Amino acid sequence: MSAKEQVTDEQRENLTLGVDIGGTKVAAGLVDAKGTILFQTRVAMPAREDAAAGFAAVERAINAVFDAQPQAVSSLAGIGICAPGPLDPIRGIVLNPPNLPCWRNFPLVAEVQRAFHVCAKIDNDANAAALAEAIWGKGFGFRNVFYATVGTGIGTGIVFDRRIYHGRTGSAAEGGHVSIDYNGPRCGCGKRGCIEALCSGPAIAQRARTHLAESQTPSLLRDLAGGNLQGLTTEDVAEAFHAGDPLAKKVLEATADLLAIWLSNIIDLLEPDVIVFGGGIATLLSEFFPRIQTELPKWSINSRCCEIPLLLAKYGSDAGIAGAAALCRQPQ
Amino acid sequence: MSAKEQVTDEQRENLTLGVDIGGTKVAAGLVDAKGTILFQTRVAMPAREDAAAGFAAVERAINAVFDAQPQAVSSLAGIGICAPGPLDPIRGIVLNPPNLPCWRNFPLVAEVQRAFHVCAKIDNDANAAALAEAIWGKGFGFRNVFYATVGTGIGTGIVFDRRIYHGRTGSAAEGGHVSIDYNGPRCGCGKRGCIEALCSGPAIAQRARTHLAESQTPSLLRDLAGGNLQGLTTEDVAEAFHAGDPLAKKVLEATADLLAIWLSNIIDLLEPDVIVFGGGIATLLSEFFPRIQTELPKWSINSRCCEIPLLLAKYGSDAGIAGAAALCRQPQ
Repeated sequence: MSAKEQVTDEQRENLTLGVDIGGTKVAAGLVDAKGTILFQTRVAMPAREDAAAGFAAVERAINAVFDAQPQAVSSLAGIGICAPGPLDPIRGIVLNPPNLPCWRNFPLVAEVQRAFHVCAKIDNDANAAALAEAIWGKGFGFRNVFYATVGTGIGTGIVFDRRIYHGRTGSAAEGGHVSIDYNGPRCGCGKRGCIEALCSGPAIAQRARTHLAESQTPSLLRDLAGGNLQGLTTEDVAEAFHAGDPLAKKVLEATADLLAIWLSNIIDLLEPDVIVFGGGIATLLSEFFPRIQTELPKWSINSRCCEIPLLLAKYGSDAGIAGAAALCRQPQ
Repeated sequence: MSAKEQVTDEQRENLTLGVDIGGTKVAAGLVDAKGTILFQTRVAMPAREDAAAGFAAVERAINAVFDAQPQAVSSLAGIGICAPGPLDPIRGIVLNPPNLPCWRNFPLVAEVQRAFHVCAKIDNDANAAALAEAIWGKGFGFRNVFYATVGTGIGTGIVFDRRIYHGRTGSAAEGGHVSIDYNGPRCGCGKRGCIEALCSGPAIAQRARTHLAESQTPSLLRDLAGGNLQGLTTEDVAEAFHAGDPLAKKVLEATADLLAIWLSNIIDLLEPDVIVFGGGIATLLSEFFPRIQTELPKWSINSRCCEIPLLLAKYGSDAGIAGAAALCRQPQ
């Protein structure tokens, strides 16, 4: 909807504002009680400047929403914020995210509350996106939701009864760093065999490179790489797969099989009611959900593991705004 | 306390009866509101006879408690039962435990309620023991408790806010089958690299055998095996370790290091407030808790993982009775 269209009285009753902070931009949007994003905008994030400059960008994004939707101001239920971790969702503090060097132990929730006089909440991207799926998306109607976002990394979120599960200090649900191979490839976190090191976008591209280096079979992937294997991307793998390339298919099948082993760990430990995949390559992975469902019983001791729905997230690139807005919808 | 000593008026106010069913015996005990076992008894379990014979043994065990403690009958808050899985704690049904062939889809909770006119609950051994630790033992005062029982197998239980976490159908918390090595040794469950296949009692004995077979170093373990490596037990490893045998120490250190990798997965996913170890070899393992605490930060991405207490369970061989009795203490 354009800035010119206005929020109706009914929608206004129950609006939340979601702010999605990244290393280069701040996106902000107005979200209704059903999880529909009514309006959104974005501003640049000067993540390498000082704390005040970083916060000014957040204020600009929020004010841009208010400027475009002035009637929303009076009936806002709250402002939710999602940002890369580590952060402390319980105390509302951004700790020391590598992508946001402007903030070190920055009390973002208190600052937003002071500036806008409305309740604010913060959580990391994956937890927030998990909550949006649980209350408005594919996890709706399920008590225990396990969410995984697969892109440059693998983030996860656990939602029980419409509440994010935080653990002792708010650092729970780092399922991307559950290792299924302690002798396996080193993850960015230092640990070996994390599912992030095996199945994130970069890991898929690396698997394609390895397969190409080991095989002489003709493959569209080789053409797409154009002699520069290091330049091969997950997008290339997706393109080759959709064009029917057998090697790309093999790479993605191997990835799906590893995801099944990882999910068997998640299921044996948590037995969620539903598993939702989001993130940049979730749509591509969703073509392998049937394969994952076939592989799961080989690994899970749960005799009913196949009954657990494996679903593609409702929210795509809007997961951040929706997730941030959802933070204000958790039961007290 | 002997059968002759009687329960005092104060204790009687708040008693629960715990029934621990195994493949060869039924143990039953009277437990007060503080988790003290006031009286216990046991009868034989004819697990290979028919369903009625199996249930008659349960009745005998419960009646033996009532006979010895007649004043308890009038003020019993409930009867809790723990048994080997698989079972359905939500519907109160024993499904098809390999160790209890007498029962197939047997509605044990309904039968106990019919026979004794009191509220009954059932859960598997590890879940029940986890709850006893959470409300009366080493998990007391912590919100999120992760419990592991290490013996012939590895069972786990998750307790959030004094309630067992069951998952979708009651099959959650099978942490013993979280794999850390999908190319690793085959577990009894069929999966590879489960922590049960790597760190249970039989896995420790197997590790000792492998070390002995690969090394020519003199070791007390070799003497204890007496030329029969296959007969070597976890008890032998414990004995050799306590006598200062370096090879036994090495075997247990390797076990501790694998437990640390596994716990890093648990912590990264659940970030519990406390981790409690029970079961037959927990006391032996507890001598390696400092080593596990040292190894954990190499594997967990949680920068505060070392703050999570690693504790030896309060309940030893009584974990079954205490756990069963605790089932009647969960908030509604």
